This record gives sequence, C-alpha cells and structure tokens, in this order.
Amino acid sequence: MSSMSVVGTQRGIEIAARVEQFVREVVIPYESDPRRTSHGPEDALVDELRAKAREVGLLTPHIGADGSHLTQLETAAVLKRSGLSPLGPLALNTAAPDEGNMYLLGKIGTPQQQARFLAPLIAGTARSAFFMTEPSAEGGAGSDPSMLQTTAGRDGDSWVIHGRKAFITGAAGARTGIVMARTGSAEAVKATMFLVELPHPAVRIERILDTIDSSMPGGHAVVCLDGLRVPHDHVLGEVDEGFRYAQVRLSPARLSHCMRWHGAATRANEIATAYACRRKSFGKLLIDHEGVGFMLAENLMDLQQAELMIDWCASILDSGSLGTLESSMTKASVSDALFRVADRCVQVMGGTGVSGDTIVEQVFREIRAFRIYDGPTEVHKWSIAKAIKRQTLAATPGER
Amino acid sequence: MSSMSVVGTQRGIEIAARVEQFVREVVIPYESDPRRTSHGPEDALVDELRAKAREVGLLTPHIGADGSHLTQLETAAVLKRSGLSPLGPLALNTAAPDEGNMYLLGKIGTPQQQARFLAPLIAGTARSAFFMTEPSAEGGAGSDPSMLQTTAGRDGDSWVIHGRKAFITGAAGARTGIVMARTGSAEAVKATMFLVELPHPAVRIERILDTIDSSMPGGHAVVCLDGLRVPHDHVLGEVDEGFRYAQVRLSPARLSHCMRWHGAATRANEIATAYACRRKSFGKLLIDHEGVGFMLAENLMDLQQAELMIDWCASILDSGSLGTLESSMTKASVSDALFRVADRCVQVMGGTGVSGDTIVEQVFREIRAFRIYDGPTEVHKWSIAKAIKRQTLAATPGER
Amino acid sequence: MSSMSVVGTQRGIEIAARVEQFVREVVIPYESDPRRTSHGPEDALVDELRAKAREVGLLTPHIGADGSHLTQLETAAVLKRSGLSPLGPLALNTAAPDEGNMYLLGKIGTPQQQARFLAPLIAGTARSAFFMTEPSAEGGAGSDPSMLQTTAGRDGDSWVIHGRKAFITGAAGARTGIVMARTGSAEAVKATMFLVELPHPAVRIERILDTIDSSMPGGHAVVCLDGLRVPHDHVLGEVDEGFRYAQVRLSPARLSHCMRWHGAATRANEIATAYACRRKSFGKLLIDHEGVGFMLAENLMDLQQAELMIDWCASILDSGSLGTLESSMTKASVSDALFRVADRCVQVMGGTGVSGDTIVEQVFREIRAFRIYDGPTEVHKWSIAKAIKRQTLAATPGER
Amino acid sequence: MSSMSVVGTQRGIEIAARVEQFVREVVIPYESDPRRTSHGPEDALVDELRAKAREVGLLTPHIGADGSHLTQLETAAVLKRSGLSPLGPLALNTAAPDEGNMYLLGKIGTPQQQARFLAPLIAGTARSAFFMTEPSAEGGAGSDPSMLQTTAGRDGDSWVIHGRKAFITGAAGARTGIVMARTGSAEAVKATMFLVELPHPAVRIERILDTIDSSMPGGHAVVCLDGLRVPHDHVLGEVDEGFRYAQVRLSPARLSHCMRWHGAATRANEIATAYACRRKSFGKLLIDHEGVGFMLAENLMDLQQAELMIDWCASILDSGSLGTLESSMTKASVSDALFRVADRCVQVMGGTGVSGDTIVEQVFREIRAFRIYDGPTEVHKWSIAKAIKRQTLAATPGER
Repeated sequence: MSSMSVVGTQRGIEIAARVEQFVREVVIPYESDPRRTSHGPEDALVDELRAKAREVGLLTPHIGADGSHLTQLETAAVLKRSGLSPLGPLALNTAAPDEGNMYLLGKIGTPQQQARFLAPLIAGTARSAFFMTEPSAEGGAGSDPSMLQTTAGRDGDSWVIHGRKAFITGAAGARTGIVMARTGSAEAVKATMFLVELPHPAVRIERILDTIDSSMPGGHAVVCLDGLRVPHDHVLGEVDEGFRYAQVRLSPARLSHCMRWHGAATRANEIATAYACRRKSFGKLLIDHEGVGFMLAENLMDLQQAELMIDWCASILDSGSLGTLESSMTKASVSDALFRVADRCVQVMGGTGVSGDTIVEQVFREIRAFRIYDGPTEVHKWSIAKAIKRQTLAATPGER
Repeated sequence: MSSMSVVGTQRGIEIAARVEQFVREVVIPYESDPRRTSHGPEDALVDELRAKAREVGLLTPHIGADGSHLTQLETAAVLKRSGLSPLGPLALNTAAPDEGNMYLLGKIGTPQQQARFLAPLIAGTARSAFFMTEPSAEGGAGSDPSMLQTTAGRDGDSWVIHGRKAFITGAAGARTGIVMARTGSAEAVKATMFLVELPHPAVRIERILDTIDSSMPGGHAVVCLDGLRVPHDHVLGEVDEGFRYAQVRLSPARLSHCMRWHGAATRANEIATAYACRRKSFGKLLIDHEGVGFMLAENLMDLQQAELMIDWCASILDSGSLGTLESSMTKASVSDALFRVADRCVQVMGGTGVSGDTIVEQVFREIRAFRIYDGPTEVHKWSIAKAIKRQTLAATPGER
Repeated sequence: MSSMSVVGTQRGIEIAARVEQFVREVVIPYESDPRRTSHGPEDALVDELRAKAREVGLLTPHIGADGSHLTQLETAAVLKRSGLSPLGPLALNTAAPDEGNMYLLGKIGTPQQQARFLAPLIAGTARSAFFMTEPSAEGGAGSDPSMLQTTAGRDGDSWVIHGRKAFITGAAGARTGIVMARTGSAEAVKATMFLVELPHPAVRIERILDTIDSSMPGGHAVVCLDGLRVPHDHVLGEVDEGFRYAQVRLSPARLSHCMRWHGAATRANEIATAYACRRKSFGKLLIDHEGVGFMLAENLMDLQQAELMIDWCASILDSGSLGTLESSMTKASVSDALFRVADRCVQVMGGTGVSGDTIVEQVFREIRAFRIYDGPTEVHKWSIAKAIKRQTLAATPGER
Repeated sequence: MSSMSVVGTQRGIEIAARVEQFVREVVIPYESDPRRTSHGPEDALVDELRAKAREVGLLTPHIGADGSHLTQLETAAVLKRSGLSPLGPLALNTAAPDEGNMYLLGKIGTPQQQARFLAPLIAGTARSAFFMTEPSAEGGAGSDPSMLQTTAGRDGDSWVIHGRKAFITGAAGARTGIVMARTGSAEAVKATMFLVELPHPAVRIERILDTIDSSMPGGHAVVCLDGLRVPHDHVLGEVDEGFRYAQVRLSPARLSHCMRWHGAATRANEIATAYACRRKSFGKLLIDHEGVGFMLAENLMDLQQAELMIDWCASILDSGSLGTLESSMTKASVSDALFRVADRCVQVMGGTGVSGDTIVEQVFREIRAFRIYDGPTEVHKWSIAKAIKRQTLAATPGER
C-alpha cells in the first residue's frame, strides 16, 4: 500500500484502498503490453482492462450508476490511486476527458440526455471528447476562450456548426462529443454547448498530433466541423450559457488531472527510490550519496505539498465554491511540483531513467505535457495575479 | 483581517482572531520604535508590549497558567498571527526560545521546577535560553548533537559543568537556562539537561554575535561555562536522557518557528501586494506587469503550501507522534518557501524593498537566518533521505 | 544566419558559415522524412544526407583526410552549427560516438589501425561504437569506470573478452568497435582498449533500449561480449593504459556534445521566438506578455553563457590541458542551461510545443537525455567538488 | 592569488595583480575597523585607505591623470580584484558612483569642467553623486527615466532646478553632483545634465535611507532640489541631450558593478570553501558532504560564467558599441548568479554565515541590493525581450 494519505469518509478510504490494490496487482502488469502505442493504448486493451475492473465492481468507482458523485475529497483519494499507473485511469474509467464530461453531463444534462450520452460513459462502454480548444495558428482560442471562432447558427429545429478544433483529446474513437461554439452576437461573445453522437461525417478528424505524451486513447486530434447539424434538444443546458458551464466543468476537471498525475509521480518516486536503495556507484548505495538522497527528500516534500494542495482545493469545491482561484493555484503549483519529481526520478536512475525499462520515462513525458494541458502554468499565474489585484483593490489594506 | 485559514476548534479560531487584531492595532505601530536594536529589541520595549498584551488577556495565549497547552493545530493558528510583526511573538510571549522551553518544562519538569522556572516564563516576566549548540570551530556540536563537548560531572549533591556554547539565543538577559551536557561514558555518548538560574558568575557571555537577523532580545551569544555548579534537583528529567528530551522539544519548537515566520512572510506579502497595486512603472500598475504579478501569484501559492504543511505537521504532533520526519519535511520546505516569498517581496518593491522604510527588509533578513536556525535545510534533507532509506529497505516494494 | 558568435581563425569562420547554410538549406527539410525512427534515423537516410555533404565538401568538416583536426575553438564554431538540426551531425559526420572515436584513433592508433579503422569513419562510410558503459544492475560500471567488469585475458597472440555492455550507442549497424576491458590484476585495476571489426558473432546485441531520445542511428544497445577474440595488434595504444586513453577522449567528446546540443537549443529558441512574435493570446502577441518575453530573455542569456563556457573550455583544451575539471564544469552547466532553454521553448509554444509539429519537442527529449549521457550532472558536481577540495587543501588560503 | 582569469593586455595583467595584492594585504585587515557604519565607511577611513593606495601608485588604477581610461576588458581585470573586499573599491577609487561619473565627465565634460570637477575625483580627494532616480511613491522615475519629474528652467545665464531625488548614493559628503532634469516641452520629454558643486543650500538631504547594504560612503539619500540655481556653463554636454548621455554612462557603469561584485562573491566563495575544507560535521569534512560540495561546485560554475559574461560584454563595449542589450543581459544574469553564490556561501557556513564573523554576511546583503540597483532583473528582462522582438520582426526567420 502506498504512503499516500486518505482524507475523507470511510467510504472514500475503502474504495481508494481497493483501487490501489487493483492497480498494483492487475493493471501494472499490462504496462508492457504491446497494444500501448504512441497515440495511446488501443481500445481493445482498454476494454480488456475495463472488463476486469467491472468484474470486481471498481469501474467508474467515483460515480454511481445514477450519476451521483463522490465528494471531491473522496474523489481525490480514489483518483490519485487510479493514477499509480498511466493505464489505471483508463482501466477504472477515471480518465480525462471522460471524467470531466461525465461530471458536466451529471450536472447539466436533461434526463434524456443523461440516458443517451452519460449512461454509456459511466458504464465504460463509450468514450467521449470535449471540443473546445481551437488552433491558435488561426487566431482561434488556445488558452483564451474569448477568441472562440467556431460558430453555431440556428436553422429551424437544429443548429449548424462550422469551425476547426485542435488538441481534441480522444476524438478518434469517441462515441460522444461536447462541442463548444459561439452563439452570441458580434457585440456579446456568448457560447453554447452541443451534444453530438460520434463518429459523424461532418466531424472530420484531419490528423492526430504526435505528442510527447502517450497515455490517452485516440491521442489528440485536429478536427474540422464542416456544417455539423445538431438537433436543438441536443443543446447541453441553456443556449448562450456555454462559458458558464465551462466554468462548472473547469475546476473539477483541472483538479482531477492533478489527482491522477499525483498518483503517477508517486509511482515514479517509488521506482526511483527502490532503484537508489539497491544500486551502488562509487562504492556506496545511490541513496547514500547526498546528491541522490537530497533529490529523493525533495520528492517527498513536493509530493506531500502537492497532495495537501489537492485536498485543500477539493475541500473548497466540496463547500460549494466554483474554486476558480484555488484550482488555478493548485493546477499551477501541483503540475510544476510533479514535474520536478518526475525529472528528479529520471535523473536518479541515470540511463535507466531515460529508457522505457521502467514507467518513469513515460511519466516524465506525460507530466511535461500536463504543465501545458488545461492551461499552461503562466496562464494560471496570470489569473491568480488578476484575482490578487481584484481582492487587494477591494480591501485596500494599509501598507504597514 | 488576514486571509490565513484557521483550522481547529472554535477556541483556536477565537484566540487567533484576537491575536491578529492585537498585533495589527497595537504591536505594528511599535515597529518604528527606536528601542529596536541590531541585537534585538530592548527588554524595556518588550516589557511595555507585554503589559499591553497582559491587559487584554493575550499574553502567552497558547499556554494556560497551569502549563496546559493548546493543541498544535490551534497553536498554529495563534502563532502564525502573532508573527505578523517581528515584535508580535515578543509582545505575546510566543517567541523562541521561551516558547520551546516552556513546552519542555511543561512536559518534563517536576512541580517544584515548574513553580520556580516555568511560572515566570508563562507570566512573561522572565526570559530563558537553551544552551545546546556549540562552536563548530572547536569541533563542537553545530547541527550534530553527537559531537557535544560540554561535560557535566557529578560531585556530591551537585554537578559541575565545563564547556563553551555558541549561538545561544537570548542568553544575555535571560533568567533561566537549560544547559545540555555530556554525562555518559566515552563509549556511550549520553547527555543530561540542567536548569540554571541566570545571571550566574560561571556562565560568562563572551560576546554577542552580529547577525543578519535582529528580532531576538539578547541576540545570539557565545557563552563560556566555567565550572558551573548545579544542584542535583535541578536536573531536568532523568540523568542521561537529554537526547531524548531534546527530541521532545525538537519538533514543536521547529514547527513554532515555521508558524511565526509564516506570519512574517504573510505580512511582507501584504505590503508588497499593496505596493504593487498602487505604484506604476512604464505606464501601468506594477501588478499589471506580468513579471510582478507572477511573483505575487507565486507568493500566494508558496504561502498556501507552507500553511498546509504547518497544519499537516501540527496534526501529526497532535496525534501523539514525535513527528521527527514530518517536522524535518516541514522545516525544510517551509523555510525555503518563505524565503522565496520574502525575496520576491523585496524584488517587487525595488529600492524600497531593500530599505528600512517597511518591515519587508527585516523580514527578508530574519527568514534568511531561519533557513539555518534549528538545522539548515541540508541537514533536514539528509535526515529525510535516511528515513526514506530506512522505510524503503524495510518495505522493499517491487520496482515496477 | 544565426546570431551565434564565431571565435577563432578565418578558417573556422568560413567552414562554420558553410555548415550553417548547408544545415539550414539542405538538412532541415529532411526533418519530416519518414525514415526517422524512434531508434534514430535509418542508415539509408544518413547515407543520402552524407552524399549531399560530400558533394559540397562538407563531410567531416573538422577532420582532414590525414586525421588532422581543427582546433577545439574552431571545432566549436563548426559543431554548434552542425547541431542546428538533430540530423545535422549525422549528415556532416560530426555526431557522437564517431566524432570522439575518430579523435581517439587519430591520437592513439597506429598507422595500420588508422588506415583500417579510422579512414572509413572519416570518409563517412562506416559507423563506430564505444563499448565502455556496463549495466549498473549487475554492479557494472555506470558512471564509475572503476567498477569495470568486462575482462580481457591474453591467449597467445590474441585476447579473449567476456562481459556485458549497456547503453552502447550505435552498436547496431556499426562497422568498428572500441572495447574497454579489465586487464590488470585484482589489486591493480587496469584496462585496455581493443579495436573490433563489426558485426562479429561474439558481439551479440541483446536488445535496443527504448529511450526518450531518438537522434542516434542504431539507438542504444545492450551487448553481450561472449568470448570475443581480438588479435594483439588490434590493441589500441598500450596494454593497461585504457583508463588514460579514456581521459584523452573524455573532455573533447564531452565538449562536442555541448557544441551540438547548443546548436539544437539555438534552433529551438529560434522557433519559439518566431512563434511568440506571431501568435496572439489575450489580445496581444505572446512575446508582449512578460511571462513569455521573460522566458525568451532567459533563453538568450542561457544560450550566451553556454556558448561562452564552450569556447572557454575549448581554449583550455587547445592550450594542451586535459581539461578534466573544466570540461566537467562545462558539461554540467551547459547541459542544465540548454535543458532550461528547451523546456522554456516547449512552454512558450503551448500545445504546439509538446507536439511533433516542430522540432522543438524532439530537442527537448534529446537534451533531457543529454543531462545524463556522458556523466549525469551530479557526477560532474562530485568531481568538481573533489577538485575544489584538492586545490584548497593544497593552497590553504586564509579564511579572511 | 586568486584563480580569476586575466584577459587583456600585459598592462591590465600587471595592474590587476598589484591591485589584488594590495587588497589582500592592505585593505582586508581594515574590514574589522570600527569606522565602518551601517551607512557605509566613514570618510576618514576611506581617506586613510586612499592614502595607502596613492603611496603605491594604485589609486584610481584604471584612469590616467589625463582622464585616459583602460579598455573595458582591462578594467574588468582590475575592478574584479578591487572588489575582493567591500572596502577595496573605496580604497582604490574604483567605486560607484564616482567610477561612472568619472567615465562620463571624461567623455562629455569640457576641459574647464574636467579641471574643476573631474580632476579631484581622479585624485581621490572628492566624492560625487549622480542625481537621476526619483521617488516612485510620487510617480517619479524609479527604473523608468521617461517619468522624470524634476524640472530645469532657463533663467538668463543660469538654470533653476526643482524636484526630489531618491536613492542618491553618496549624496551626503559629495563635493560634486550631476543632476538630471527635464528640459523639453510637455510633448517632447527631454532631459539635461547639470554639474553642481556640493554641499549647496538648495540641495537638501532629507534623510539617509536605512538599507540592507552598507558599503557606500554617505549611504543612499532622499534629496530635495529646492530652486537650485546652476550657471549655464555647468551644463554637462548639450542641453536636451541628457537621455543620450545617460546611455553613454549606463553600460560601463552597470558593467563595473558586475566587476566589483564578482570580486566580492569570489572572496565569499574563498572563505566558504576554506571553511568547508576545515570544519567537520557528522564525522567528515563539510566539503565531503555532497550537499556542501555540490554547492561549492555550483559556485565555481556560476563564478566562471559570470566572469565570462563580464569579459564578453567588456569586449563589446571596447568594440565601440553602446552595448545596451549586452549589458542588460550581463547585469541580469551576473547579479542573479552572484546572489546564488553569496546565498550558498552563507548556507555552507551555517550560523557563522549569518554572523558578522566573516565578510560573507555583508557580501550577501550587498549583492541582494545589487539585484535591484542599476535596474532590477525584471526591468532588464523586459528590455531584452523588447530587443528580441525587434530583431525577430526585422529578420522574420522561418519557423522551421
């Protein structure tokens, strides 16, 4: 069992422990399975793992069949453990983007929409994609939603969507899409979310990017939406409220990234620590070299701080707050901390660290991407600074 | 009121709020008092401040007259706020080394010893010093207690102590001393603690060091113990158990440093943030420059993480653990984080930041020293690495 | 033309300029060639590029057909430019490990050995490998040559070698090998270098590692030497002098890594800078965000310092010194600086930075490995500290 | 003798060697002189030291009596060595702000102005001050010259100046002032420089700031210019050309800071290294702990890189360039590197490092201020980013 703390109810503790055991005993042996490709594991591998999770009642362990969701604090305990292997979140159905999409559908979807789109996701029989990011090369929305260029126009009982989307994780192979498009006027930039059944002839995958990470089934796609027609009752929530819903999805989805990658970094650190306690150089165990021992000590501190930030932010979300500032603080600090951890693990293990002989090399690559996905650190710092300014000008505390 | 969280009971919350108000309204105006010297505030200033704290019932707010102590988690809430001014811990009697000495006397002292030595400390009418560190130039114990060279020999009903001590905070002006000396044989290095009434002719202050910090009354002294005779009933606890008692004092004392300096860094950050929200350069508010805004965002994250580490370690101590590993992790990470915060505050404020026009410059100097006092970061990383090795070899988890 | 400085003679300046033009105009278009694999470019691609370099007289631009070598300072100017593409050093025959092997053969080989083994390398018609590193898992020499476990025993007119080697770059496909093996007694650890024609049945490639880098043809192999018989006249230099020759090869080889990767990081920075000067977010060019502009400013400073360190170390080698300390200082500081540069380039470019759409993503991976290859940073710091101690104890300067 | 390199002519090498010997043998013993105050050494101490330098022909070693100046590369060799003690630049008359003022007067002053204002400075019998910076609290020019608020108006044959200046180093006790004031119209912000004999009743020193540094005689003053009348022939250079002259002074003055503080950091590192090679902890020499040895190795690399940057920038200035970009790159990277060095020295020495027992503690404080003086790191990064943008948009190199 790991040394990760469990904060929360008995329910969370129990699920987390079972998830950890499942990942360690069942999932990890699949890490050398040849069906893992540079564009993520093949769906057949994912299906095989999910069948095993379903069998022991651990598939989608944080969401009930009725859409009920563990608290964020309980979710943290569970998702961290699911992340102990890059395959874990796929096996257990706690991976992005499905996890965030399930959350959003559970909050905003109508019963009909939930039956049609959410149920298969919870059952782990379908994957989904979230079509928000646009190619920045064309002036579209990179990290900046206000630059949204994809448009949706009303045409009788349906909507017609045109645009291009980039970095759409899992689009290839997805059965459900949530598409974000502009619906307001030129003066008032508004957006609406649409549910789409996939594959669809008007949703054309132009190419799958070659990316440094390789844990997401379907990879990251550039997608052309070419006159995509969506019936009006597939609007998710209200028309023109897309930005608000994006906020609802934002913090929990962001935080769930932190949870999963915390698990991955914890695992990398276990491997590096075991390595340093077994190998010798210059006449003594690696860990007895302060240069190595200090790196492992720094890892332990970084992992502890990251875990505390995750749990803190989870508690704030559980209190009902949107947690926009807090999840920015958590994403920015946790992704940077976990990258330092992964980088030190690689360094401690030397040549073995940059090889595929252990999962450490992949974890390093995944977490490098994590510093950019869901908003680069710099965008979060910018938001945090704006919040600080807002609060300071509101309070105008004395200088001394 | 500050944005610092309060975790703990209603009792802790209430005391913390009153302490914060007292520091902001009563203590901070004294920061420009000329009785602050480079060797710390003069005792007259401290007495004046304590009289005001006593008046409103806030003197020694974390310890009852009977020696009872708030939980560590409650103490964290209170001591962080006492640290919002470098004068705060002195005004409120929450400062080192008295705070740690009171804790130790409360745990180990006999009722007679408590009446004689502890009561005046709790009443804030006396100061104390802890005589452990020795001059490393002479091969004595710097951060390494096993090198203890001061000896105590039994002579009838009393003990006679010889040795030299260095960096003895507050020795000048102290009324009580706790002296650590070797009592074991050459083979078995043991130590005993002795209570000493000060001033005493055999406790000769050789000189007060000029140090970068300046908040401790009495400064830091080099002291010669020249045939100091102590009656046997002034042995604190059991003979030969000094190292064990040092461990008892260690974690709470270390953690209380983190609490107080967290308050100081929080204050520095308030000042720097207010500055950045008011001054302009190159045509816009400082905070609107990302270079500045990012530094303040990093401060907010560092302060948050430091606070979470402090509360986490406090909870572990409250659970009854010695918390040696956890307090090393907390001291090392918190002192480094708070230094980054203080350094950024100085940088944000430019020329004003390196001047005495605000308290930021002093906080920077104090926290620089804090990275060394109570064990330099490197010694803590070394202990943490040893603990990791011990735990890993005990558990021998698989590599993959 | 790049902004990289040229220090050195007119000869060096002219060759460097032609190399830069060749890489930019001829080599870079091949970066999207499908014959690049995760184990390095296929030999057919390398041969095609080399034919083009040979045609314009730029193949092996730093070594004459007679084995004469540019000065290190001139070499720096040339190799930095060859590195502007990961394919550049292969196209121009300035890549590791051939470059270091040519240097060593030019210094130590007999005329007969040079005719047989060196000439085809200079002509760019053969590749070579250097068999020194051993699997640390088996207690062999990782970064620590004194742990060498491969043995060579004299048997009449030949030697018989047994052992295992790991991380042997380019072993697959090499025509020449230089094998390092123990030849001294148990008391006196000595080593000898042997020249081997490859492929050879007793040199069995067990597997090619999957590594984070992908620029080296043949990848990095684990190799079993199973009774490899080498005629005595294929001993390189003198018997038992292998460690000394390793020192001769060491500094120039180490430095040539710095040169090539400096070119790669320079290129990544050009791409990231161009990107930041063209793309907008939140209403302004990326570079107009201080968060981005500062990263590019830091890149410029890091690249400048790295270049100065390389030229400084080159001058020291040109003066006839072995430069062991200086090349450790250069390798450790340059590899860390170039990694910071590559990491910032990725970050500036966001999603594009972690994708294969530009060469930045590969440069990031390559330079991550570079922090470990040829001695991890920590091993170099350890050597530097030992040199500092040696020099300080020899000089014993006063403390004040 | 130090391990610092000497680049340049035989002349530079010889002067540098004599300066180093003088500082080590004559100046350093004065470091414990009680006439050093927190506002800098008293003038009597400076005079005493200068008499000794004059005696051996080393006063103002980089400027001839005729105003001729060593090359910047030679100056680097000399000024680095003068900085080996914080008292060295004062003893040798190589300190700021006189050094920059002499440079400017030598370049721009008329023969009459030079005879009256420059000659006593070169002779070391007078000190000077440069009145440019203004209190940012009042919206004046902090690091941003375009915000200059002090005005000069023509009144017959003289000018009348009103304004407030802040952070005016050495104003107290100066005999010469160079005052920068606005002279252009509201549309065209221009400035003019004026020479002023001091003390002067209209130049009122309001207060001397308490700053973290303490090496500058006269400290840093806030000064009120209250109707200061200056004869027209005391205009330095041409009217309205003040900003251009500020640029002339800028890079050499900035660079000379780097030189002097490089010397100070080198000295701190010598002390820390000697300390680590003599003191033990946990059973071995401090330097044999990798945690300490690595810090000293990092210091050696940082000092080497800083020295190379200084010499590189000096060469660029010697080539006739204004070197605005290069001196920003050098100031930003060198000040940050030297601070890391000083910080590590403090840390290596533990309690001794934060005490005044060695000069390390002062060097740490001085270099902290150096990260702000002459433009904070962030302002330099901002300028560098603007230069990068300008060059990139001019060149528009291809992305790949």
